[in-house]
Amino acid sequence: MILTVTLNTALDLTYRVRSLRPHTSHRVSEVIERPGGKGVNVGRVLAALGHEVTVTGFAGGGTGRAIRDRLADVPLLTEALVPVAGANRRTIAIVDELSGDTTQLNEPGPQIAPTEWGAFLDRYEELLPSASAVALCGSLPPGVPVGAYANLVRAARAHGVFVLLDTSGEPLRRGVAARPDLIKPNADELAELTGSHEPLRATQDARRRGAQSVVASLGAQGLLAVTPEGHWRATPPTRVHGNPTGAGDSAVAGLLSGLVEGLTWPDRLTRAAALSAATVAAPVAGEFDRTAYEELLGRISVTGKVSAA
Amino acid sequence: MILTVTLNTALDLTYRVRSLRPHTSHRVSEVIERPGGKGVNVGRVLAALGHEVTVTGFAGGGTGRAIRDRLADVPLLTEALVPVAGANRRTIAIVDELSGDTTQLNEPGPQIAPTEWGAFLDRYEELLPSASAVALCGSLPPGVPVGAYANLVRAARAHGVFVLLDTSGEPLRRGVAARPDLIKPNADELAELTGSHEPLRATQDARRRGAQSVVASLGAQGLLAVTPEGHWRATPPTRVHGNPTGAGDSAVAGLLSGLVEGLTWPDRLTRAAALSAATVAAPVAGEFDRTAYEELLGRISVTGKVSAA
Repeated sequence: MILTVTLNTALDLTYRVRSLRPHTSHRVSEVIERPGGKGVNVGRVLAALGHEVTVTGFAGGGTGRAIRDRLADVPLLTEALVPVAGANRRTIAIVDELSGDTTQLNEPGPQIAPTEWGAFLDRYEELLPSASAVALCGSLPPGVPVGAYANLVRAARAHGVFVLLDTSGEPLRRGVAARPDLIKPNADELAELTGSHEPLRATQDARRRGAQSVVASLGAQGLLAVTPEGHWRATPPTRVHGNPTGAGDSAVAGLLSGLVEGLTWPDRLTRAAALSAATVAAPVAGEFDRTAYEELLGRISVTGKVSAA
Repeated sequence: MILTVTLNTALDLTYRVRSLRPHTSHRVSEVIERPGGKGVNVGRVLAALGHEVTVTGFAGGGTGRAIRDRLADVPLLTEALVPVAGANRRTIAIVDELSGDTTQLNEPGPQIAPTEWGAFLDRYEELLPSASAVALCGSLPPGVPVGAYANLVRAARAHGVFVLLDTSGEPLRRGVAARPDLIKPNADELAELTGSHEPLRATQDARRRGAQSVVASLGAQGLLAVTPEGHWRATPPTRVHGNPTGAGDSAVAGLLSGLVEGLTWPDRLTRAAALSAATVAAPVAGEFDRTAYEELLGRISVTGKVSAA
């Protein structure tokens, strides 16, 4: 199985309102409720692609119960969340019916006690031996040490398990130094890590900081991969309109599924770019449109070159 | 005991953000979670005033469980919510740290099945004989007939139980025709019911439509009461600054507690106006500031006259 870690697992709510106007009252016409957090999104896309996946992280309170109940219904997905006293955070995406624009509110997440963090580390060590790859995704809830991902990267490497890190800020900086196999920053995260806004230069710099390979997700410009095997760019045919929430998570699922299936880098990047664009095109945030995905697979342009041996 | 009915009981969330800006992302710095809906707020204030209170309505889903868990902790308050398949709605109040202004989002509430509505009517009939007064409060969730409050008013009257109705729109219009003992509209609700924006005229018109007594809550202008026993105005000493959420519910609790304690109309109105202003002054929406309440009690001006016998 593929293991995904979401330390700040969320209950994602999408609210539809006519138009958000600060300091007034709004009737919400539609509420969509689903488990979220980057690693959970990655897990759901992997399961939809036919991979067995285990999702871990923390679950507590009423929101945690709602997350568990809904994950239990996803085929091929095993939920291995560690119980905690606090309640999982909610995120709220408020979508304006008139413009389609989204306003986001993110709760901070539960306070994690040192014993709860210890229980998570034990569970992670138990899960690693059965994992073909692991994805470490998203922000850290309060109480989890800022160097958490560096620990988790080292543990995966000690077990010889391929490890992908997708986070930001100081947790990314420290995690990269522990030499993960792959990181997937977006343009902002890459610039924050390296200080450079020039994607190719920043990507090369991120490798020098410790990442074996870097796949930068550059929105409508597609993906830029810098790896020991070569450099590539994967670009969708046209700009896709829609909601970009979860597009990066779908790219991570594309990269990991391609890795465990033994695809070449260009084929992995094609899949990742097609899934990412098909997620933007989907009506519900964080889901991908399967028809769009299959149609896009044949239309992703990959250019680049293999490194000299 | 005093019975309060909240057909659209809610889990009220208060989010603190720096400043709400549409179409951007926000970190929520503080989350406060409490059971809400007008009748629940009335019940909590009655309990705080030392009255035994029973709250009924519907509870379902994870939000319903959270509401029940928290109501169980309130002294003097008995929870008699009827289980339903759907989940209780959430309301979200987003408070700007910079300005103190609030943006409100209200979910619509669960779909109530005809058998669930039937189960509620049975529970209500069971509770009425032990009630000294009943308050029917707030909006109707989907599936509850628009004439629901008219039914509940008639059932209370058949049991000889004093019944107060506090709702708006068509449910208020129909409920008033069933001749409740008291309604407590705000200025907008009163204008919608009667077509008149002149409070005294509108209040008199509301009585002709069926309400035995009317206490209109007019914000900073205090309360206007038109009853068979006389007409009064109760006015706080100065404009109180703060969050008006729940001020009307505190006024309802003041009126009902005064009624069952046998207070005169002027004393009931004094209590209701003081509680209402002390709710605006409280830092948390829907709670009242006890020190402010006790201090305000001596400073409410009541003017008016007793009707000729």
